[in-house]
Amino acid sequence: MSLSTLTKPADAPSTVDASVPYYQSVGNECEMFEQAFAQRLPLLLKGPTGCGKTRFISHMAAKLGKPLHTVSCHDDLTAADLTGRYLLKGGETQWVDGPLTRAVREGGICYLDEVVEARKDVTVVLHPLTDDRRVLPLERTGELLEAPDDFMLVVSYNPGYQHILKSLKPSTRQRFVAMSFDFPPPAVERDIVAKESGLPAERCAALVNLAASLRGMKGQDLEEGISTRLLIYCATLIQAGMPILDAARATIVEPLSDDADVQEGLMEAVRATFG
Amino acid sequence: MSLSTLTKPADAPSTVDASVPYYQSVGNECEMFEQAFAQRLPLLLKGPTGCGKTRFISHMAAKLGKPLHTVSCHDDLTAADLTGRYLLKGGETQWVDGPLTRAVREGGICYLDEVVEARKDVTVVLHPLTDDRRVLPLERTGELLEAPDDFMLVVSYNPGYQHILKSLKPSTRQRFVAMSFDFPPPAVERDIVAKESGLPAERCAALVNLAASLRGMKGQDLEEGISTRLLIYCATLIQAGMPILDAARATIVEPLSDDADVQEGLMEAVRATFG
Amino acid sequence: MSLSTLTKPADAPSTVDASVPYYQSVGNECEMFEQAFAQRLPLLLKGPTGCGKTRFISHMAAKLGKPLHTVSCHDDLTAADLTGRYLLKGGETQWVDGPLTRAVREGGICYLDEVVEARKDVTVVLHPLTDDRRVLPLERTGELLEAPDDFMLVVSYNPGYQHILKSLKPSTRQRFVAMSFDFPPPAVERDIVAKESGLPAERCAALVNLAASLRGMKGQDLEEGISTRLLIYCATLIQAGMPILDAARATIVEPLSDDADVQEGLMEAVRATFG
Amino acid sequence: MSLSTLTKPADAPSTVDASVPYYQSVGNECEMFEQAFAQRLPLLLKGPTGCGKTRFISHMAAKLGKPLHTVSCHDDLTAADLTGRYLLKGGETQWVDGPLTRAVREGGICYLDEVVEARKDVTVVLHPLTDDRRVLPLERTGELLEAPDDFMLVVSYNPGYQHILKSLKPSTRQRFVAMSFDFPPPAVERDIVAKESGLPAERCAALVNLAASLRGMKGQDLEEGISTRLLIYCATLIQAGMPILDAARATIVEPLSDDADVQEGLMEAVRATFG
Amino acid sequence: MSLSTLTKPADAPSTVDASVPYYQSVGNECEMFEQAFAQRLPLLLKGPTGCGKTRFISHMAAKLGKPLHTVSCHDDLTAADLTGRYLLKGGETQWVDGPLTRAVREGGICYLDEVVEARKDVTVVLHPLTDDRRVLPLERTGELLEAPDDFMLVVSYNPGYQHILKSLKPSTRQRFVAMSFDFPPPAVERDIVAKESGLPAERCAALVNLAASLRGMKGQDLEEGISTRLLIYCATLIQAGMPILDAARATIVEPLSDDADVQEGLMEAVRATFG
Amino acid sequence: MSLSTLTKPADAPSTVDASVPYYQSVGNECEMFEQAFAQRLPLLLKGPTGCGKTRFISHMAAKLGKPLHTVSCHDDLTAADLTGRYLLKGGETQWVDGPLTRAVREGGICYLDEVVEARKDVTVVLHPLTDDRRVLPLERTGELLEAPDDFMLVVSYNPGYQHILKSLKPSTRQRFVAMSFDFPPPAVERDIVAKESGLPAERCAALVNLAASLRGMKGQDLEEGISTRLLIYCATLIQAGMPILDAARATIVEPLSDDADVQEGLMEAVRATFG
Repeated sequence: MSLSTLTKPADAPSTVDASVPYYQSVGNECEMFEQAFAQRLPLLLKGPTGCGKTRFISHMAAKLGKPLHTVSCHDDLTAADLTGRYLLKGGETQWVDGPLTRAVREGGICYLDEVVEARKDVTVVLHPLTDDRRVLPLERTGELLEAPDDFMLVVSYNPGYQHILKSLKPSTRQRFVAMSFDFPPPAVERDIVAKESGLPAERCAALVNLAASLRGMKGQDLEEGISTRLLIYCATLIQAGMPILDAARATIVEPLSDDADVQEGLMEAVRATFG
Repeated sequence: MSLSTLTKPADAPSTVDASVPYYQSVGNECEMFEQAFAQRLPLLLKGPTGCGKTRFISHMAAKLGKPLHTVSCHDDLTAADLTGRYLLKGGETQWVDGPLTRAVREGGICYLDEVVEARKDVTVVLHPLTDDRRVLPLERTGELLEAPDDFMLVVSYNPGYQHILKSLKPSTRQRFVAMSFDFPPPAVERDIVAKESGLPAERCAALVNLAASLRGMKGQDLEEGISTRLLIYCATLIQAGMPILDAARATIVEPLSDDADVQEGLMEAVRATFG
Repeated sequence: MSLSTLTKPADAPSTVDASVPYYQSVGNECEMFEQAFAQRLPLLLKGPTGCGKTRFISHMAAKLGKPLHTVSCHDDLTAADLTGRYLLKGGETQWVDGPLTRAVREGGICYLDEVVEARKDVTVVLHPLTDDRRVLPLERTGELLEAPDDFMLVVSYNPGYQHILKSLKPSTRQRFVAMSFDFPPPAVERDIVAKESGLPAERCAALVNLAASLRGMKGQDLEEGISTRLLIYCATLIQAGMPILDAARATIVEPLSDDADVQEGLMEAVRATFG
Repeated sequence: MSLSTLTKPADAPSTVDASVPYYQSVGNECEMFEQAFAQRLPLLLKGPTGCGKTRFISHMAAKLGKPLHTVSCHDDLTAADLTGRYLLKGGETQWVDGPLTRAVREGGICYLDEVVEARKDVTVVLHPLTDDRRVLPLERTGELLEAPDDFMLVVSYNPGYQHILKSLKPSTRQRFVAMSFDFPPPAVERDIVAKESGLPAERCAALVNLAASLRGMKGQDLEEGISTRLLIYCATLIQAGMPILDAARATIVEPLSDDADVQEGLMEAVRATFG
Repeated sequence: MSLSTLTKPADAPSTVDASVPYYQSVGNECEMFEQAFAQRLPLLLKGPTGCGKTRFISHMAAKLGKPLHTVSCHDDLTAADLTGRYLLKGGETQWVDGPLTRAVREGGICYLDEVVEARKDVTVVLHPLTDDRRVLPLERTGELLEAPDDFMLVVSYNPGYQHILKSLKPSTRQRFVAMSFDFPPPAVERDIVAKESGLPAERCAALVNLAASLRGMKGQDLEEGISTRLLIYCATLIQAGMPILDAARATIVEPLSDDADVQEGLMEAVRATFG
Repeated sequence: MSLSTLTKPADAPSTVDASVPYYQSVGNECEMFEQAFAQRLPLLLKGPTGCGKTRFISHMAAKLGKPLHTVSCHDDLTAADLTGRYLLKGGETQWVDGPLTRAVREGGICYLDEVVEARKDVTVVLHPLTDDRRVLPLERTGELLEAPDDFMLVVSYNPGYQHILKSLKPSTRQRFVAMSFDFPPPAVERDIVAKESGLPAERCAALVNLAASLRGMKGQDLEEGISTRLLIYCATLIQAGMPILDAARATIVEPLSDDADVQEGLMEAVRATFG
C-alpha cells in the first residue's frame, strides 16, 4: 500500500519487504540517508526533474519503517499550510494540524519537495527544527512541540531552476546535510524502465541510449533533460502495441519541446535510434 | 444531452451513438487517447485557439462512456477551486468538492483547459495525480483519495501564447503523454462547417480556402489564425440569408483585428474569394 | 420607463413603441443584431466613447421585447460579481444571483460594457456561454444553467484604449460576431442633438460641424473625439439661455482637455464656428 | 451650523442667509452651477489646492437649500465605500448606506473631492448616474435607485497632479459639464483673508501681493502655489500678535518646501514684502 | 507618570510641574505651539531622527495640561487604525474607537509620528479635521464628530527620508502650520545628555563635540546624523563604568554603519576625541 | 531543558549551571550584554549566518536567569504576529497574546532574529519599547503595557544580506546599542566543534583550518562563509564512522554551492587538508 502524503510502513520493517518501493542505489546515498537519520540531521537533496529523488525517499522511509509525509511546495504555500490552522466547526474554531505538525507529533520523515518554491515564512518554521533545538513552535496554539528522535526533515530542489528571487538563503542551506542526484547510469536505468513498463530489458536499452544523447542537449535546445518517467511512458505504450515512432513522438518529442525545429531534431534522433 | 462541466454519457456506450459529439479524426489522435486512458497515463493537448481540442475531448469522453469534467483555467484559479473548500451552512462549515475532486471520486475525464493560465499551486494538486501514485490529497479534510482506474486527467494549452511567466515547468510537462493539434485539413474542415451551419458543403469550400490563406498571415498581421468556429458563424449567417460580404465582415474581419489597415487587407481577401 | 441594469420591456413589443428608446440607424447594425439574436450567437461591439453603443443596445432590447441587464466592467470586477455569491443572512449563508446569472435564468440580453477592463476570471464564465454549449456553470452552488433561446450576450470595448495588459485574447474574441461603431453621420447626429436638447435642429447643425473638426484632432492633441453626449449638454445649456461661448467652454473645451494651449485651440475653433 | 459630510441647509433658503458660507464670486461660476443643477447635469471642477472649490460648493449647496454630502477620495476608496455594505449586527447582516447612496435616496449634492484618486470601480458607480438614466444600481441589495430631480453629482480634481496611472478616462470625463478654478483675484483674496483672520484688509494686501509672486514660482521650485488657506493662517497668527517674519516662516516658508535654498528664496521674498 | 499613547496630565496644570517632561527650548518653538493650539490650527514638525520632536510634544502637552495620543505611522497603517473598527464581541459587532477618534471625543493632542509612512486613506481622515470644519466623519457608525476647542492635531516627518512615493501632497501640507527641528545647540545638548545619563556635564561636552563632527558626515558616508539618544546611551554606559572606547563603539560606531571603512573612520574620530 | 520560543531558566540562576548553554566568549560581548540589560537598553546584534548569535543569547538568558522568547522574522511577519490577535472561540472573540506581548507581560528577553525581514509595521511596535517610555501599546485591546525592569529587547540581522528594500531605517537603528559578531577564533571554534560532535579536538583542528581558508572565498565564489554548524555536522559524521571525504562533500561542499566548478574547488581544498 502506497500513500503519498502519509506512507505507512509495515508494522515490522524487514530488510527485503514487498512493501518497500523498488530503488536501485547508485552510490552511497542510502548510507548517507541512514547516517543523517541516526544523527538526527536534516537532509537536502538536489537534482533534476524525474531523476528519482521522490522514489529514493519512499524507499528509505519504507526501509527504515517510518511513515512518510510528502508536501509539494509552490508559490503560494505558506507556513500555515505546513503547521495547521483553525477551522470553524459547529460554531467553534478547531485547530487542524498541517502535515509538518503531524510528522513532528507522530515521528517519521517529512519531505518538502521543491522547497525553494514555498513562501518565505516557511523558512521560519524550518529553522528551529533544523538546529540543535529540534522544536516546532505553534504560535497560534501556544504549543512548542519537541521532535521525537525518529523525526527527520528532508527537502529537495532542482538547482537548474534556481534564480535570484527563488533560492535558499545560506542561513537556511547551511542547516542541512546535502546530496546531489543525477539520472541513474545506463544499465540501472534500463532495468528500471523494464521493470516498470514490462517491456523486455533488451528493448529498453535503445531507449536509455536515446535518453543519454538527448540529455546532452540540455541548456542548448532543451530546458531540462528527459526524465526516466518519460522513458517508462514510452516503453509502456510500445509494450501495449503502439508503433515505436508514434510512442516516441507522444512521450519524448512533444513533452520536451513546442519548437518545430527542436521537435524535428528530436525525431531525427528517435529515427536514428529505432530506424 | 451535452453538459460542460459534467458531460454524462449514455448508460450503455455504443460505437455509433447519437449522443457522441461529432468529431472528424485527422490522424491517430483517437488511438493515442484510448491508449493513454487504458494505461492510466495523463494527457497533454497542444494547439491553437478553436482548432477542435474541446470537441475532441467531448467526443472521446462520450465514446469511452465516461463523464467529462471541464475547467477553464485563468489567472486567479487556485488549487482550492479545483479541490473544494469549506462553506458556511447553517452555522456549520461544510466541505464542498471542487470539479477535480468530483472527477477523482466518481471517475471519468477531468479536462483543464489552458492550464498554464492557472496559479502555481494548481501544479501541486496535479503532481501526485500524474505519477504512479495517482492520488489526490485533500489537506483540508485529511482525505487521501485514490483515483479509480477510469479516472483520466487531460490538460491543454496554446503554445502560441507561451511566455516566460506563463509556461509549464519541465517537472510538470514531463508527467504527460502529449499531442499537438492543428486546424483540420481543408476537406475535413469543409464538412465540419457544412454540418454545423447547414450551408451546403460546396458553398463552405470557399470559406475554408479563405481561412487557409488568412492562417498564413499569423505572426505577421494577425496574432492568431482564424478558428473553425468563426467559419461556422459566417456560414450560419450566410445560410440565414445575410449578404456574404456583410457576414464575412462581422464574423471574420472584425473578430480578427481592430487595425484599419489589417481589416482592409482581410476584406480584400474576402472579396477576392467571393467577388 | 428606463432602468439600467434591468430594462423591462413593455409586455407586448410593437414596431413603434413609446417605450423603445430612440435610436437612429446608420447601417445594417439592427439587422446584424437581430440575426445574431436569432442564431443565438454572442455579439461584440467596438467603438469610441459616447458614440451610441449603449443607446443602440437599449433600443434593440426594447425592440425585441427582451429585458436588458447592463454591467459596466472595471479593474476589480470578478467572475463572482457576475455570477453571484453567498451572503450571510440570519446566521445562514444564502446564495444571491449576480446579473449574468439572472440574465441566464430569466432570458434577455446581458451587456458587459468595456469588457476588457474586467479581471481575467470573467473570461472563464463567458467561454461556456459563447460556444455551442451555451451553459453557465455555477461551481459554488453546483448548478449548471442552460441559457434559454432568448438569452443573448453582448460585450463592448473601445479599441482606442487597448494596450498589452488589457486586451481580449484571440481565444475569447473569436467567440463573437463583431461590429465596429463610430459617431453618427452629421445629419443624423444633428437630429439626435436637437431631439435630446430641445434646441432647433438648424442651430444644432453648427455644433455638429464643430464636432467633426474637433474629432479630426484625435490622436494629436486630444485623447478621444468629442462625444455626442457633450454636444447634447452644450445644446441643452444654450437652449436654457446660456451664452454660446460660455456653454461651449463648459461642455466642450473643459471636458476635453486640461492643457492651456489645447484649450485655447479648442476655443478658437468654437469662436470660428459661432463668432 | 456647518457639517462636512452632510451640510443641512436652513429650512427656508433665502438670498442672504447667515447660514450660507461666505463665497466671493469671480466669474459666472454661480450661474453655471445653477444651470447644471437645473438641467440635472453632473459637474466637474478643476483647480489647484486651496483655491476655494470646497468653499464654493458649500456656498452653492446652502444657497440652493440642498444638503451637501462630501467624500474625500483616496487610493483605497472603493465603490462600496460610496454605495454601502453589509455589516454584521446581532448575528444578522444589515445593509448600511454609503454617502453616495444616502445622497441619491434623500436628494442633495454629492461632492467627490479629488475623484481621480479613487479606485477604478468607483467609475462604474458613477456612469449610470451621469447619463440620462440617472440611476444607482445596488447589486448587493438588488435595488435600482432613481436619483430625484434635486440630486446633483459634483466631482473635482487638481490637473496639476495628473499622471498616467491617475487620470479620468475620456469615457468618464465626457459625462460632466466642467469648470476651471484658480486663485481669486487680489482684491477678492484680500477681502477673504481679512474676513477670515480678523486682520485689517490693508494689512492683508501685502500678504496677497506676496502670494501672487510666490505663485509665479510654481513648476520651478515649488510643486504648487500657495493656497489662500495659508494666507489666512499667516494673518491669523499676525493678528494674534506674532512677529510677521515668524508667522510667515511657519505658515508660508515651511509648508511650501523642505529645501534649504528654496526656503531661503522664500524668506527673501517675505522680507522684501514686509522688511 | 508617562504613558505613550495616552499621556494624562496632572489634574491642575502648573507652570513648573514635576510631571512635565524636561525640554530645553532652543527658539520660539514653545510660543509657536501655544499659538497654534490657541488658534486651533494643526501643526507639522519636520526634523531628523532623534532630535527631540517627540520629547517636545510630550513637554507641550503636559505644559498645556492636555492628554497626548501618539501614533507611530507605518506602511500598513490605514484610516481604520486611526478612527476605529467593529469587533465581534459576544456574537455582536461592537465599535471600538481608534486613537484619533478618542482624541477628538475627549480633546487633547493627537500626534502622528512619521505621517508620510501611513497609507493614503489616512489623508482623507485628516482633511476635514484640518480646515475650518474641524470635524471627524465616521462613515461606519454614521457619526460626525466635531473636534472640541482643545483638540489639536500634530504630525511629523523626516525630510531626509522623503522620496517620490512617500511625501505629503501639497493639498495636505498646506493645511498645517509648520516648524523645522534640528539637533539642539552644543550647550543645550550637553545639558540634556548629562541630565538623562547622570554623567557630569563636563564629560558630556566631548561627546557633543564628537556628535557635531559626525553630523557633518551625513549625506557622504552616513545616511543620518547621530541622534541625541545615542549620545545618552553612550554617556549612560560610561557612567556605568564601561571603558569609553567600548561604549562608543557599541553606541556610536555600530549603530551608525555596517561598512568596515566607515566604521574605522568613526572610530578614528572617537579616538581623536577621547584618546 | 531547551525550548526555543520560551526558554525557562532554572528557578535559581547560578554562575555555573548545567542548564546554561555552552558559549565560549571571544571578547567583551558578555559584559556588554549585561550592561545593556542593567541599563534597560535594547540590543542589536550583527553578524553572518551561523556564527553563534542565537547561542550567545540563549547563554546570556540562562546566565541572567531570564526566560527567552525567540521569533524568527520573515517577509510576512506582521505586528499582529508579535503582539497578538483576536481568535474566535465558542462564538466569542478572545484575545491571544503574541510572543512580544508575553515577554513584556512576564519579563525576560525577547529576541527577534533577522529583524530586517519583518514587515514595516513591526517597527511601530518596537519604537515605544526602545525609548525611555518602554511601553507596548495594544491598540486592539486598549491596553498600554509598561515593560518591567527585567524586559530586554534583542534584535539581529546579517549585514551581508542588506539591500535597499530591506534595511533598518536610521530612526530604528539609532534606538539600539549594537555589537558585531564574527566566527570565533580558531582555537575557540575547534573546542566548540569538538564539544558538540564528540570528535577529539586534535581532529577538529584541521576542519577549523579548512573553514578559515573557505571563508576567505566569500564574496568571490561563495555567497557566505561556512558556518560553525556545518563543521559540527562534518565532525559528527566522521565521528560516526563515515569516510572523511564523503562527510566533507555532504556537509561542506554540497551545502555551500550548486556550481560544479566551485564544488570542485571546494573538494580540492578538502583533499589538500585531509589528503
